[in-house]
Amino acid sequence: MDEDARPAELQALGTEECYRLLATQQIGRLGVNAENYPLIFPVNYALDGQVIVMRMDAGTKLAAADHANVTFEVDVIDQRTRSGWSVLVRGLAEEVTSGHRAQLIERTKASGVEPWAPGEHGRWVRLIPHAVTGRRIVPGRLPPAFGPGAYL
Amino acid sequence: MDEDARPAELQALGTEECYRLLATQQIGRLGVNAENYPLIFPVNYALDGQVIVMRMDAGTKLAAADHANVTFEVDVIDQRTRSGWSVLVRGLAEEVTSGHRAQLIERTKASGVEPWAPGEHGRWVRLIPHAVTGRRIVPGRLPPAFGPGAYL
Repeated sequence: MDEDARPAELQALGTEECYRLLATQQIGRLGVNAENYPLIFPVNYALDGQVIVMRMDAGTKLAAADHANVTFEVDVIDQRTRSGWSVLVRGLAEEVTSGHRAQLIERTKASGVEPWAPGEHGRWVRLIPHAVTGRRIVPGRLPPAFGPGAYL
Repeated sequence: MDEDARPAELQALGTEECYRLLATQQIGRLGVNAENYPLIFPVNYALDGQVIVMRMDAGTKLAAADHANVTFEVDVIDQRTRSGWSVLVRGLAEEVTSGHRAQLIERTKASGVEPWAPGEHGRWVRLIPHAVTGRRIVPGRLPPAFGPGAYL
């Protein structure tokens, strides 16, 4: 390897930076406890401020997520440079139903998220964050042209 | 949209296909229950047959994963065509220690997985599958040139 090698570096990301990164992506992974496992489902999403809005059908995933502690993970990782970032949101998931305030229902739908997977995904779910953490692996051993900005 | 539009299609993947897909990637997401949440951590991995081999440090993640029900999720999703695949492995995670058979230790290390993140990641962890499921979203509304093979 390069004689001028720098080691890779792990940086913690602030909350603001985490949300800025979340806004750049459309697919994340929902973590819910169900069937004795911490299940992970890829899902597309949109942001309503700091709330993550998703669509899903009325199956196991929604039943397990509704009013439960869930997580939502988003990452962008470059296998070539072995660098990238990941953000993990911990929060409470809640299905938006007709019992909610009209204003909340409107805001949720205005996020514009549409289900990609075929089938019924009529239910709207909001993930209200309790905490957001993130980290970035800054590549070592690479010239400045492949600096941390390259994988945004 | 195209008048000849086909709807997107969701296909369940067989076990063999799931492992074939897992072998094409290097980064997945480990799901572990810790701190009252189903936490999700991106991690690089290698396969030893059907066992997933990972490296990690001696922190919260390892403590929560060792001898516990965990999951491992890998996906490749194309935002442009809104299609792709995901595989979810449910299993038991176990740290490989000097108490294990020498042959198992050798096989594990022979998988060649190296930690990408900086810092101490000296511990070896094997995830022994209980069940593997996967699905593929075949894009609709696209000509054959962008068929399901395009995102492998």
